[in-house]
Amino acid sequence: MLDLPFLPFCVLLGGLGFVCVAFVTAWCQHWRGGFALDGSAQMFNWHPVLMVTGMVVLYGAVALVYRLPATWSGPKLPWKVLHGALALLAFILAVLGLAAVFRFHNDHGIPNMYSLHSWLGLATVLLFSCQWLAGFCAFLLPWAPAWLRALYKPVHVFFGSTILMLSVASCVSGINEKLFFSLKNGTMEYKYLPPEAVFANMLGLLILLFGVLVLGALARPSWKRPDADSPDSCQVPAPR
Amino acid sequence: MLDLPFLPFCVLLGGLGFVCVAFVTAWCQHWRGGFALDGSAQMFNWHPVLMVTGMVVLYGAVALVYRLPATWSGPKLPWKVLHGALALLAFILAVLGLAAVFRFHNDHGIPNMYSLHSWLGLATVLLFSCQWLAGFCAFLLPWAPAWLRALYKPVHVFFGSTILMLSVASCVSGINEKLFFSLKNGTMEYKYLPPEAVFANMLGLLILLFGVLVLGALARPSWKRPDADSPDSCQVPAPR
Repeated sequence: MLDLPFLPFCVLLGGLGFVCVAFVTAWCQHWRGGFALDGSAQMFNWHPVLMVTGMVVLYGAVALVYRLPATWSGPKLPWKVLHGALALLAFILAVLGLAAVFRFHNDHGIPNMYSLHSWLGLATVLLFSCQWLAGFCAFLLPWAPAWLRALYKPVHVFFGSTILMLSVASCVSGINEKLFFSLKNGTMEYKYLPPEAVFANMLGLLILLFGVLVLGALARPSWKRPDADSPDSCQVPAPR
Repeated sequence: MLDLPFLPFCVLLGGLGFVCVAFVTAWCQHWRGGFALDGSAQMFNWHPVLMVTGMVVLYGAVALVYRLPATWSGPKLPWKVLHGALALLAFILAVLGLAAVFRFHNDHGIPNMYSLHSWLGLATVLLFSCQWLAGFCAFLLPWAPAWLRALYKPVHVFFGSTILMLSVASCVSGINEKLFFSLKNGTMEYKYLPPEAVFANMLGLLILLFGVLVLGALARPSWKRPDADSPDSCQVPAPR
């Protein structure tokens, strides 16, 4: 691959993440009526913004914490706390994003959880909650035994990438679905590709690009911590 | 991860791939009116079947060829030919799948290439065509220099996984879109989750599971060819 160092890559990726959040916010603000907390369609608009911000952009930052060379030496605990705290923040944003869509559905008599997008999206957030809880128990609680950490670490790493993939697939199907809902029965029909459709389609492709770049960075051997394949060290030496 | 050997994993994965193809075929046959070649909705039905078969299931098999221990010793050329030939077959199925949907759209006066699903899907197939052509030129033509192979190999590997991710995201958004088109304005509306919706949603989740398992298998260090990180060898020694 291109021999870009990690930190300039992070700056580019951060810029792309910012553009994704700006695009989804601009879409909801400019074409979908802005934001509110009253159960209206404006409340629904928090859903795409919070899911993209939490489950894609912030999640991507969480996943890449251990690729920062600064995390490779010195005490590991502060970085673990940062990784866990950012992941918790991403999860809270996702839960708020889900609350927005459930409230909108309930206030409008729309059934919940019928589309493939909703099944996939909820499964992704549930998987993320399990991932966070298991990671907290195995890596942050000091009494987790070393053998458990060693056993669980590759599982945590695998599901870390998997959840990001599922998030991105959820976003793409959600944007597609929302455009079919919003752009119909009028001069602005989706199939005539009005400016909103072009803009939101581009948002979908930018989210995909962000996800692919994060997954590529995670997979790149030279950016992994040198002892990445060793079992995770305990913070407190276990009594013998 | 679970310490499953590669070959039993392949059998399970093959079974899952068969189930994906069977599900998409059963969906189109049982609920969408079956198959035809006359530009009707029955012609459209070839689209999901061919895309899932070509761009997900067969593509997954193509991607895993070099994980077979049998490919690690002896002459490499036959395996390269197999990898390239299966990839070409997957690509042909994808092109036929695209032809089916373009023909259906054109015969019904429906515009092409407006939804995010269509943008993503076509971008994926175009990327796959570039991947195949570049792979053919770099690894199968005997006069490609070793430095070019060494330079291109990690790029080919990266895009190999990326294209599968994009394919899976395309399938999920496509199934979601098709269900919104098909299940509306009647007692069978998508939001009331009729049996067809449950069945096709499950198809979407099975495709995701298949994709995640293939990507997990590709990333697993112990299943990689021992010399996987070395530059690709030339079939014919270069004259000095």
